[in-house]
Amino acid sequence: MSQSNTHPRGFASDNYAGVHPDVLAKMAEVNVGHVVSYGDDPYTAETVERFRALLGEQVEVFFVFNGTGANVTALQSLLRPWQNVICSQNSHINWDECGAPERFLGSKLWDVPTPDGKLTPTMIRDAYIGRGDVHHVQPKVVSITQSTELGTLYSIDEVKAIADTTHELDMHLHMDGARISNAAVSLGVEIRETTADAGVDVLSFGGTKNGLMGGEAVVYFRPELAENTPFIRKQGMQLSSKMRFISVQFLALFENDLWRHNAAHANAMAQRLHEAVVGIPGVTITQKVQANGVFAVLPQQAIAKLQEAYPFYAWDEARSEVRWMCSWDTTEDDIDAFARLVAEVVPASL
Amino acid sequence: MSQSNTHPRGFASDNYAGVHPDVLAKMAEVNVGHVVSYGDDPYTAETVERFRALLGEQVEVFFVFNGTGANVTALQSLLRPWQNVICSQNSHINWDECGAPERFLGSKLWDVPTPDGKLTPTMIRDAYIGRGDVHHVQPKVVSITQSTELGTLYSIDEVKAIADTTHELDMHLHMDGARISNAAVSLGVEIRETTADAGVDVLSFGGTKNGLMGGEAVVYFRPELAENTPFIRKQGMQLSSKMRFISVQFLALFENDLWRHNAAHANAMAQRLHEAVVGIPGVTITQKVQANGVFAVLPQQAIAKLQEAYPFYAWDEARSEVRWMCSWDTTEDDIDAFARLVAEVVPASL
Amino acid sequence: MSQSNTHPRGFASDNYAGVHPDVLAKMAEVNVGHVVSYGDDPYTAETVERFRALLGEQVEVFFVFNGTGANVTALQSLLRPWQNVICSQNSHINWDECGAPERFLGSKLWDVPTPDGKLTPTMIRDAYIGRGDVHHVQPKVVSITQSTELGTLYSIDEVKAIADTTHELDMHLHMDGARISNAAVSLGVEIRETTADAGVDVLSFGGTKNGLMGGEAVVYFRPELAENTPFIRKQGMQLSSKMRFISVQFLALFENDLWRHNAAHANAMAQRLHEAVVGIPGVTITQKVQANGVFAVLPQQAIAKLQEAYPFYAWDEARSEVRWMCSWDTTEDDIDAFARLVAEVVPASL
Amino acid sequence: MSQSNTHPRGFASDNYAGVHPDVLAKMAEVNVGHVVSYGDDPYTAETVERFRALLGEQVEVFFVFNGTGANVTALQSLLRPWQNVICSQNSHINWDECGAPERFLGSKLWDVPTPDGKLTPTMIRDAYIGRGDVHHVQPKVVSITQSTELGTLYSIDEVKAIADTTHELDMHLHMDGARISNAAVSLGVEIRETTADAGVDVLSFGGTKNGLMGGEAVVYFRPELAENTPFIRKQGMQLSSKMRFISVQFLALFENDLWRHNAAHANAMAQRLHEAVVGIPGVTITQKVQANGVFAVLPQQAIAKLQEAYPFYAWDEARSEVRWMCSWDTTEDDIDAFARLVAEVVPASL
Repeated sequence: MSQSNTHPRGFASDNYAGVHPDVLAKMAEVNVGHVVSYGDDPYTAETVERFRALLGEQVEVFFVFNGTGANVTALQSLLRPWQNVICSQNSHINWDECGAPERFLGSKLWDVPTPDGKLTPTMIRDAYIGRGDVHHVQPKVVSITQSTELGTLYSIDEVKAIADTTHELDMHLHMDGARISNAAVSLGVEIRETTADAGVDVLSFGGTKNGLMGGEAVVYFRPELAENTPFIRKQGMQLSSKMRFISVQFLALFENDLWRHNAAHANAMAQRLHEAVVGIPGVTITQKVQANGVFAVLPQQAIAKLQEAYPFYAWDEARSEVRWMCSWDTTEDDIDAFARLVAEVVPASL
Repeated sequence: MSQSNTHPRGFASDNYAGVHPDVLAKMAEVNVGHVVSYGDDPYTAETVERFRALLGEQVEVFFVFNGTGANVTALQSLLRPWQNVICSQNSHINWDECGAPERFLGSKLWDVPTPDGKLTPTMIRDAYIGRGDVHHVQPKVVSITQSTELGTLYSIDEVKAIADTTHELDMHLHMDGARISNAAVSLGVEIRETTADAGVDVLSFGGTKNGLMGGEAVVYFRPELAENTPFIRKQGMQLSSKMRFISVQFLALFENDLWRHNAAHANAMAQRLHEAVVGIPGVTITQKVQANGVFAVLPQQAIAKLQEAYPFYAWDEARSEVRWMCSWDTTEDDIDAFARLVAEVVPASL
Repeated sequence: MSQSNTHPRGFASDNYAGVHPDVLAKMAEVNVGHVVSYGDDPYTAETVERFRALLGEQVEVFFVFNGTGANVTALQSLLRPWQNVICSQNSHINWDECGAPERFLGSKLWDVPTPDGKLTPTMIRDAYIGRGDVHHVQPKVVSITQSTELGTLYSIDEVKAIADTTHELDMHLHMDGARISNAAVSLGVEIRETTADAGVDVLSFGGTKNGLMGGEAVVYFRPELAENTPFIRKQGMQLSSKMRFISVQFLALFENDLWRHNAAHANAMAQRLHEAVVGIPGVTITQKVQANGVFAVLPQQAIAKLQEAYPFYAWDEARSEVRWMCSWDTTEDDIDAFARLVAEVVPASL
Repeated sequence: MSQSNTHPRGFASDNYAGVHPDVLAKMAEVNVGHVVSYGDDPYTAETVERFRALLGEQVEVFFVFNGTGANVTALQSLLRPWQNVICSQNSHINWDECGAPERFLGSKLWDVPTPDGKLTPTMIRDAYIGRGDVHHVQPKVVSITQSTELGTLYSIDEVKAIADTTHELDMHLHMDGARISNAAVSLGVEIRETTADAGVDVLSFGGTKNGLMGGEAVVYFRPELAENTPFIRKQGMQLSSKMRFISVQFLALFENDLWRHNAAHANAMAQRLHEAVVGIPGVTITQKVQANGVFAVLPQQAIAKLQEAYPFYAWDEARSEVRWMCSWDTTEDDIDAFARLVAEVVPASL
């Protein structure tokens, strides 16, 4: 039995996948000789230049280990402990980071319920409370996720409207772009169009979910906001000594548009899955399928049965809602086989 | 010109080196299919078993990204914010982590000057101040480094004496083992003899400086101390999603005794360097050469001249003391060429 | 003009009031000679005994400076940073403490919208999310406020039901009792009946809003939870050196049932105000009047007009809802004069 | 037996003393009617004006509860978590605040051994390490204590030299003035001469040890440094609701030069004690007596014997060094009686 059979692909998470071969090859390629540690090496410098070519000559880039590290590093550079972050209740920073933002920032997250994972200017204005009142945490940062935890997208105009509101209220706009490539590809735009050009101040640029081994980048579109980031990253335990092996993963991602291909593929697989299951009796799709995830409500017994064959997560157990994530290595056969099983199992559970 | 010539090996740090080929090969080998993320994968489980075989069946192991992350995660599981850590002034936690321990632990480091980087039972007793007095931080953890930041070693008896004192005073003993392999090899013992068997409670087991790409392990010899570590690691931004690529680096390190060979080689290179330069007029060796580093005082002009040819760091500029580190990939030719240059440059600077 | 006229009583807050004369007299009475500082004095010991007589022989009592200090000290003894506090969105800890809990605890507050300021067992169960999941903060404390920020009360049965749910889920129950005396008096019970006897684990026992100069007490009904509190209080900047002058304020409060008289009076004034305004056209009472506050929606222009004569706060400007607080020194004349003005101004603004 | 006999005056601490009657009278005087809480009252405004008259028209003043609160509030406004505070090892912030600075600031205190409690420009330069190096905490604040914990004084020229060095190195100068009145009186100068005029940026202005009930002030000589202090104070649990009762204590202190009389008296009593005991065989005075404390080494048995009659603290048990503190209410008879006992007990213990 091949190892591939031992570890079959499911729909649990885009981080169950391995590393794209081009990424691994690039890491091996730079494994020669000694270079300065902690990021002062030529490979990291070259990668930063690639980011600048992609996102703007002025951007400042800091590589970190993981998504939580990226978000916390970004936020820490934008606020002080008595200031808060306005975010969606189901944002990763609020729901899935074990309180790392509160712990490290010392700040309150002011979370807002959002049916589709998306903040709006109205929600932001409603959450903008107590500026100047010492008893209330001071609104200072808006954080949005692109694409969202629910697989939905902000249009460019939606991001712009949020950026305008945020800046009008003298706040900064952070974007958690753990899946920014999926978003840009789905919108049919370059990444800078949905980030820098739309008014985002700081971006957590995700790599791990798009075929890297492990690496994220904090990208500052307003470089003056990065003034303290070298110290924030180090104190935040996010500074890698053999940095070249993180930075060059992004180099591989930018060569031959790998970022675009990987993301487009994952998105396409989600679309294929969506189309294959949307008409099956007993399957209710709960969110627009705009990136690489499909959310659906199924009969409870069907969920258990499907999970015996394919790993995936219940998203909201109370509603028997599930999340199916596609990744860069999901195949059409994977989708088709799974969809056949859904078609078999779900109607039979009604 | 080959890349190897572009990035010649110097003596700046053991983290200027790349990754041992066996480690990279193992990472490529596990890059197949999907596995559960965040450490619930079979490769990580296998690696933990290897740790248990090496260090004791009861040990609990948590992989993290870097040395600061390992130390802070370990310490956080041992104390509360009103308790302190007794450590050497030149320990990595006190000197080189940009205040990460204070920031994340909220605790004071009670640092003690040590001429050779080594704490003693007497120093610990002198620093054990104010237990029960609410005005004073409460002594709770002793942290020692093996081998030390100054390239020196604790003998097994010295570790045991410290452990006895520490435990007698109702404190925990943490060992920063960023170079634990170099220490064990130099002492001619197994790692468990200078850790678990000597009374260490929690070990930061270093990998990155011994040929890994990036990965450290927090090892609990008393598993009850690890009760909260899963949450500490996650909240501390040290939980990797594609964990297999960190854990299997250690798997490679344990296969064919790679950890031992790498460390023994680095140590031998330091000895070779020591022997080659100790008699050179103008070179004063300042610390015992017991691991993979050589510390020396040189004439100031000689330092600048040598640094033009080989990267290395001034350790204490006021004293014109330098640090020369050897790594798993330092060659005898590297040493010999450098020693020749020292012999040429230093006496001429007197 | 007398100073009393310079500082007329309004309805802004029960902390606009001064100190009850008996409290000031007691403070003067103990201003003799030297006593041990930081709480090891006989007056503080005597006060603790009074607390024990009132609330149970086993209770541990720690005096602190203010309400935020009491709440944070209490919570800090109940959780670790990766654990959370389930509370009402409009609780004082969530809304009015400038993020002090997040900053000092490093923990997330998991706030729940509550129309009347009161949590229910169902809300608590819904907020009890992710126990054992490292990605999610761990539910550990439920915090309720008695009487609430909205002037409402938990019945004893309601507190008991919350305590049962809380303990069943292996959590601790904290009560913010900034107005605990008002609550007990309104319920017609002893304080211990709505705290210790109803299952509360730790109480922030308020004094300042009930006629003290400044002083709150953290009361542990389960003394084992207080093990670390001496250090938490000191590190939390809440340990007074000349402690006798805080503790004896409570002594005065307990003598001659002053706590009961002050609270009963403030409650009665709120009732009197309620009765006087409830029928006025244009005045809509928005919350049950169960303690010493009255909440009402008024025409916007009326609010401004009334505030010219009497200080009080808009509670929710968007709804033009106001809060009128009564205190230990509010007089029947104050109420009657204000109610007359409301009757004059509000209907005219319609 | 009078209460005064029940609580005899000893030499343990200047915070064992009670409140000066003028202070208590002033507190009673303002206990009329309602005023705005949290410091927006006319009494607090008047007190701030008195501070400005004394220390400079531009100063910003924030009242807090205690000395730890003052120091932490002041420091928090001067640095970020990756920056450090250079201070004496035996400074109150380093030794006696249970780690409150590290906990709240998230910063490292870089403490320096000082035989007499006094930093020097050379010590500061030696401790100014690693500016710009991300691995090292960044030097940002120098904190000195006037008078020191060892009863010694900085001359005005010494403060100026420290201020010059501090500012030259782009750092801020904080002064812990828990006993600033004792210092100014002993130097024979106005408080502003040893603070603002000497280059201090922020002062913790102590009141409690000089006859207040409980109250300290954070005074900013450069008002731009106070920009965030309203939020820092609130989030730091140091904002009093019935603020008038803290601020007017200082009003009383400034009326009729009470601050000067109290401090001068305490200093004179320390001088009287010093003169009375300095020649007694077996008594070795260990520090200059420049404020209100006397430090001496005595035979161990004598210490125990003296403590039976008068409370005071062993300062350094290893050296059998004691601290005798005088306060605003110490009498000449107290001194003379104690000195007689010393003369009786100590020589007999030799």
